[in-house]
Amino acid sequence: MKWLVVVSLVAIITCSFFPAPGHCRSQAEKLKKLFHAKLRNEIKTSQFKAEEMDSRVVVEAAGGNKEADLIVRLPGQPLVSFKQYGGYIKVDPLNDRNMYYYFAEAQHPEKDQLPLVLWLNGGPGCSSLGYGAMTELGPFRVASDAKTLYRNKYAWNRAANVVFLESPAGVGFSYSNTSTDYTTGDVNTSLDNLVFLQNWLQRFPEYKGRDFYIAGESYAGHYVPQLARNILLNNLRTHDTSINLRGIMIGNAVIHDETDNIGMYDYYANHGMASPESVAAVHKHCNFSSDFTDDQTDRCIAADRDFSIATAPIFPYNIYAEDCLLYNGPTAAPLPFSITEFDECSAYYVEDYLNRKEVQKAMHANTTNIPRPWTACSDVVQYREASTSVLGDIHNLLANNVTVWIFSGDMDGRVPFTSSQYSIKVMKPTIETKFHPWYIAGQVGGYTETYKGGLTFATVRGAGHEVPSYQPLRALSLFMHFIGGTPLPNSKRF
Amino acid sequence: MKWLVVVSLVAIITCSFFPAPGHCRSQAEKLKKLFHAKLRNEIKTSQFKAEEMDSRVVVEAAGGNKEADLIVRLPGQPLVSFKQYGGYIKVDPLNDRNMYYYFAEAQHPEKDQLPLVLWLNGGPGCSSLGYGAMTELGPFRVASDAKTLYRNKYAWNRAANVVFLESPAGVGFSYSNTSTDYTTGDVNTSLDNLVFLQNWLQRFPEYKGRDFYIAGESYAGHYVPQLARNILLNNLRTHDTSINLRGIMIGNAVIHDETDNIGMYDYYANHGMASPESVAAVHKHCNFSSDFTDDQTDRCIAADRDFSIATAPIFPYNIYAEDCLLYNGPTAAPLPFSITEFDECSAYYVEDYLNRKEVQKAMHANTTNIPRPWTACSDVVQYREASTSVLGDIHNLLANNVTVWIFSGDMDGRVPFTSSQYSIKVMKPTIETKFHPWYIAGQVGGYTETYKGGLTFATVRGAGHEVPSYQPLRALSLFMHFIGGTPLPNSKRF
Repeated sequence: MKWLVVVSLVAIITCSFFPAPGHCRSQAEKLKKLFHAKLRNEIKTSQFKAEEMDSRVVVEAAGGNKEADLIVRLPGQPLVSFKQYGGYIKVDPLNDRNMYYYFAEAQHPEKDQLPLVLWLNGGPGCSSLGYGAMTELGPFRVASDAKTLYRNKYAWNRAANVVFLESPAGVGFSYSNTSTDYTTGDVNTSLDNLVFLQNWLQRFPEYKGRDFYIAGESYAGHYVPQLARNILLNNLRTHDTSINLRGIMIGNAVIHDETDNIGMYDYYANHGMASPESVAAVHKHCNFSSDFTDDQTDRCIAADRDFSIATAPIFPYNIYAEDCLLYNGPTAAPLPFSITEFDECSAYYVEDYLNRKEVQKAMHANTTNIPRPWTACSDVVQYREASTSVLGDIHNLLANNVTVWIFSGDMDGRVPFTSSQYSIKVMKPTIETKFHPWYIAGQVGGYTETYKGGLTFATVRGAGHEVPSYQPLRALSLFMHFIGGTPLPNSKRF
Repeated sequence: MKWLVVVSLVAIITCSFFPAPGHCRSQAEKLKKLFHAKLRNEIKTSQFKAEEMDSRVVVEAAGGNKEADLIVRLPGQPLVSFKQYGGYIKVDPLNDRNMYYYFAEAQHPEKDQLPLVLWLNGGPGCSSLGYGAMTELGPFRVASDAKTLYRNKYAWNRAANVVFLESPAGVGFSYSNTSTDYTTGDVNTSLDNLVFLQNWLQRFPEYKGRDFYIAGESYAGHYVPQLARNILLNNLRTHDTSINLRGIMIGNAVIHDETDNIGMYDYYANHGMASPESVAAVHKHCNFSSDFTDDQTDRCIAADRDFSIATAPIFPYNIYAEDCLLYNGPTAAPLPFSITEFDECSAYYVEDYLNRKEVQKAMHANTTNIPRPWTACSDVVQYREASTSVLGDIHNLLANNVTVWIFSGDMDGRVPFTSSQYSIKVMKPTIETKFHPWYIAGQVGGYTETYKGGLTFATVRGAGHEVPSYQPLRALSLFMHFIGGTPLPNSKRF
């Protein structure tokens, strides 16, 4: 029952702010479902066991090939000079579980030297194709007519070869022919992601041994370090160096339930969107520690109720954004822009685009007629097992010389930068470079602090939860410093 | 010496971020000067004495008339249906001290019933014409060619008759022929503003007895309640009801030095732009109480230094704004917009516009060839006396049935909403309507809480220091509820 207070909160932050279609596109909605499940004790917090890997890792036979996955051209796409691929990787022949990926090679003459990056979105249950590729860091975005694509000037494949994976099975175009597979959790997801990666490298062997990074946001705060941990363990057991993991980067990331929670309350009060009194009462009367298994007190529940009522109408992913009130189907002209140049209605265009038959055909997606439309977040995935924290994994990655960057769009209220600051503090890291602004194009891109042992914290100024959507230039700059192994610049001159 | 810590901060927030011209347009710079003067013990904190009024209040003889002040048309102005006036009101015949005002009659068929509103900008030393009228709530804004005016759709004269006063003498077009008048402070300013108002009503007698409100921002947090207090005292002494004061409204307002200061530190840490550690150290080692007259400790100074270095590159008036890096003289096309649709370079266009001879002629301004150009903030005003708090005045206004609204653009770091929240808490008011979002056009306009006795607190979401610049629709809505005597709506439906 300890999650009751959280549930009363997130029950109010629902999809009711999204007008037209019946289901929900929001990663916040998926986090709500997770917390509900925790309330009903449907969530286990079992730990990953290394020995589970042996039985799962199946190196792909000659079942697929790179050439067959080549996307000749996406419908409505402008001409480009880089190659794109899309297709399925089978991760479980017995259950017939298949992961859909979209891969954008680097648009760069030295692409063969540039790193390989895997991007994962969160939820749990949200699509890296719909979010990451189509509204955040991919090479194209979908126009308001839901038919035309336009270039994203700040696509991350300007600096790396980027794979977008829809994970776990049940998300987007990924599916299983064994429906019980859709009831899943952190352990299964991280193992499937490892198997995917190993088999993908069979199909794209030129990336074996290439500098490899994993990045993601939101609930990928779990996926990314857990996959990284599996890679390290598997490399150790198999003495295989095909996956040359160098670093991970997670944004507005769920990493440690206790601090994630209290950081969210503080954030809203600190931004004038909850009363200082209600949040002070939460501090006084609630206990979010994972050790605490009693019911929350009535005072805690009352304080949370006040908080929830106040924050309910705020779009949690960008507290300054306008609601998408005007959406009424695709239009030739884009709707008026929000507070930033990102169109808050983009999710609708993407959904319409990815459900078009010719688009799916061009992408080699939905080849088996999945009995549901593509949605940005999955309605079939039931997440039933989750860690309460990934700080242990992060600690181990750092100890194994894997760089860790934790970044945060500073306008996100759902998993805000305060949560990340609090979580980092739990690790008691030693400061290497003190808190300072970082710059791009003469402007403050955000703030950063680095710690001994390879850990970096960075905010992105003016960005919501989906950082590359709201601040594409700043996000690309952050990414290039991350994969370049260079600190974020402390001066406008550089 | 107690201000040393503050000075070390504000010394870094200088005009160096404004590229082209040599002097400074920023109200933050003027606040810095004030704090510097306090450091050098050049600021008295003398209290206003009611008996000073008798000798100062000189009701205007037939020296000016309304018809002569009519502005037929401003250069570059689109056609409008309301009348504008501009001219001088003498407030001291002996020293020849003259206040420039600009008056926009309501653009409304019932303008004769609509209230009279006086708007004041802060600094101390900044112009209500340049800021308030030309970039915030006035009927026109200056285009990037510095020659053309365009309509502000959300001008406050849609709801009221609005006077903009450049105060004290030395600001903008207001001047004195006795240069010692430029060394001034709260007492002189509030008395001159009262004399101005009385004499202005001689020239515009149809506004005698009209519902009257005073509004302003920033350092006008002093000007507005102090003028209101003078009006009440004068009405009481003279039994004159010409000035029918109903309410005051102040935004991002300097009102109580101690809480204003600590609220600013907290705000930056809360927004990820100062390290939590440096601000925790300020809390621990600094004392901003007006009772505290010792030097700040070395630890305080060190903590403030860390804070100052981190916040220095942030534009204090809108922490998410882009710097105006591109300005290189007037241009036919506007520069790329900032994070909101407000052009951060507007101050340059306004300065160029108001220094044009034909503009001054049309406005009946600078009729005596003031020996300096018009600037948004004055370089001649020396502010040498100031209250440490206006909470006492606010308390007295409420006790005399004068409504008080304290509002705050939630993106302002200079005098942030946290400062206002802390200051209101000092007054220990009784909550009437609990903290809740308020709505306009289907969106959350901000948050509000009301208190017994006529006090309202409200934030404006997504607005910097100059609220009507950054969020014109929300600001107009706030203003209309203020003068309408209606609470801000707690539901989207209304």
